Amino acid sequence: MFDTVTTVLEWFGLCIFSVTGALVASRKQMDITGFALLGCVTGLGGGTFRDLVLGLTPVSWVEHPSYIMATLIVACLTFFFAHIPQSRYQYLLWFDAVGLALFAVVGAERALNASNDPIIAVAMGVASAAFGGILRDIIGQEEPVVLSREIYITAALAGAVVFVALVRLGVPREIAVGLGFCTGLILRGAGLIWGLSFPRYQPRPGRPIGKP
Amino acid sequence: MFDTVTTVLEWFGLCIFSVTGALVASRKQMDITGFALLGCVTGLGGGTFRDLVLGLTPVSWVEHPSYIMATLIVACLTFFFAHIPQSRYQYLLWFDAVGLALFAVVGAERALNASNDPIIAVAMGVASAAFGGILRDIIGQEEPVVLSREIYITAALAGAVVFVALVRLGVPREIAVGLGFCTGLILRGAGLIWGLSFPRYQPRPGRPIGKP
Amino acid sequence: MFDTVTTVLEWFGLCIFSVTGALVASRKQMDITGFALLGCVTGLGGGTFRDLVLGLTPVSWVEHPSYIMATLIVACLTFFFAHIPQSRYQYLLWFDAVGLALFAVVGAERALNASNDPIIAVAMGVASAAFGGILRDIIGQEEPVVLSREIYITAALAGAVVFVALVRLGVPREIAVGLGFCTGLILRGAGLIWGLSFPRYQPRPGRPIGKP
Repeated sequence: MFDTVTTVLEWFGLCIFSVTGALVASRKQMDITGFALLGCVTGLGGGTFRDLVLGLTPVSWVEHPSYIMATLIVACLTFFFAHIPQSRYQYLLWFDAVGLALFAVVGAERALNASNDPIIAVAMGVASAAFGGILRDIIGQEEPVVLSREIYITAALAGAVVFVALVRLGVPREIAVGLGFCTGLILRGAGLIWGLSFPRYQPRPGRPIGKP
Repeated sequence: MFDTVTTVLEWFGLCIFSVTGALVASRKQMDITGFALLGCVTGLGGGTFRDLVLGLTPVSWVEHPSYIMATLIVACLTFFFAHIPQSRYQYLLWFDAVGLALFAVVGAERALNASNDPIIAVAMGVASAAFGGILRDIIGQEEPVVLSREIYITAALAGAVVFVALVRLGVPREIAVGLGFCTGLILRGAGLIWGLSFPRYQPRPGRPIGKP
Repeated sequence: MFDTVTTVLEWFGLCIFSVTGALVASRKQMDITGFALLGCVTGLGGGTFRDLVLGLTPVSWVEHPSYIMATLIVACLTFFFAHIPQSRYQYLLWFDAVGLALFAVVGAERALNASNDPIIAVAMGVASAAFGGILRDIIGQEEPVVLSREIYITAALAGAVVFVALVRLGVPREIAVGLGFCTGLILRGAGLIWGLSFPRYQPRPGRPIGKP
């Protein structure tokens, strides 16, 4: 069984990501069913991928339909309240950041329970954090957030690494979850606020032909 | 075991969706292998997703290779006969509508047999109806039909809801399948003919800053 | 158990595809985590799809984390050395060609071991060869190589068909693997060098209205 902290965070992450999916739907002026579809895809996409590759089928939301209901309700509420914030895109980016940090830790935790390999746990944390947003941006034809110049995948990676390392060091899970989440959110937040980014690949001139 | 009506409809849906995939290939002037690829992806994509998340692996077309053969043959026939209709895009939209209504019912039926939960059944109906077309449009770099202004996902949703509700009320499956299919097709058809659509999200001015 | 030749080729294919993913990341000027993500997606995508639909879960890279490590290391090396070649896009296309031919044979071999059906084996060969590159191009927002005018999917198809046919005829696996790989690589290479392509779909004028 998973401890309560992780389950609560997974629920929170589902709802947060569902909001980002619905906000993309609002930018495309879709109808309410479109909001529901993009909310579900974004909220459930990462966990679906994680469960499938770990062989945990039927996937969690088939066993617990309350997951789908939560993403649907949140997406529909967004349909009616999305006009309130001044800038929907800013909200989208920040909700996406919270969801990213949450799912990086939750995904790593689930994988640690299923396979007990730290590399797989970190990879699953990154994958379940990134996958929902990638699907959302592809289906909604947005510029993929994952390609953004500011720190993004790195934040999920750092959060998952901190969590897995602390668990391995014997730190209680609640504390490891908290510190992993904060690491991810602070890094991504630094990217959003100060445009913090890692060195990008800089194309340099190729070697002159004929020289070794 | 599934009853015969559903199996026949699944076959018909496979072939119809395969035609829409091949028509996208024709719009991109691909060669015959491209037709086969897009036909398979569109015809088998929805069912593959459904089987994977329900944990019904190996997926149905691995167990019954005749499914692949049917989509391949249909896609190759389309290569030779796609020039006949005056407007290929109109055919694409209508075939897609029939496939959507068919898979909404078939997907819900399969999920009802596997998990017996009405919410999951409806979600699976919508997902298996929409997924093949989403993949087709992403790989073929078309404007996703799922983003279209006219009723689309809602039609699949309505068809699946009608089917599941009737089965729950004790109506014989053949009748429930027929009524669910008609509901989906009529709604989507109304969208195509009269441009019927649900209220879209309308951006409204944000609240004035400083006011509650 | 799989024989050694296939395992070696799978490793080689993983690394080659990881390079192509990293080269796409370099074209988008991503940071090193972006290189790692695209390298993993491209290197592992085809095999993940194959394992999922065959029901071989947890998928191979969850059971053998060394697969992930290899794609990560290759992607990170590419970050530092991608500037050396004169034309990165040419390298991308040729590495992709080698990976395509390798995975067509490896995928067919794995499917033959799992289901023993020649049609499924050929389909899995094509799918695992094409899927990683399709994901790479969608996430990296490149023009999908699979839509390219020159022979692409057909090369994977031919390689898989040759391999499966030879195995069925009783030819030793090593030889069948070698000939299948050469068939795929030569066909795709001919497409790259001479622009060899199959007849494309040519839109022809529709039938005059009112005539049978």
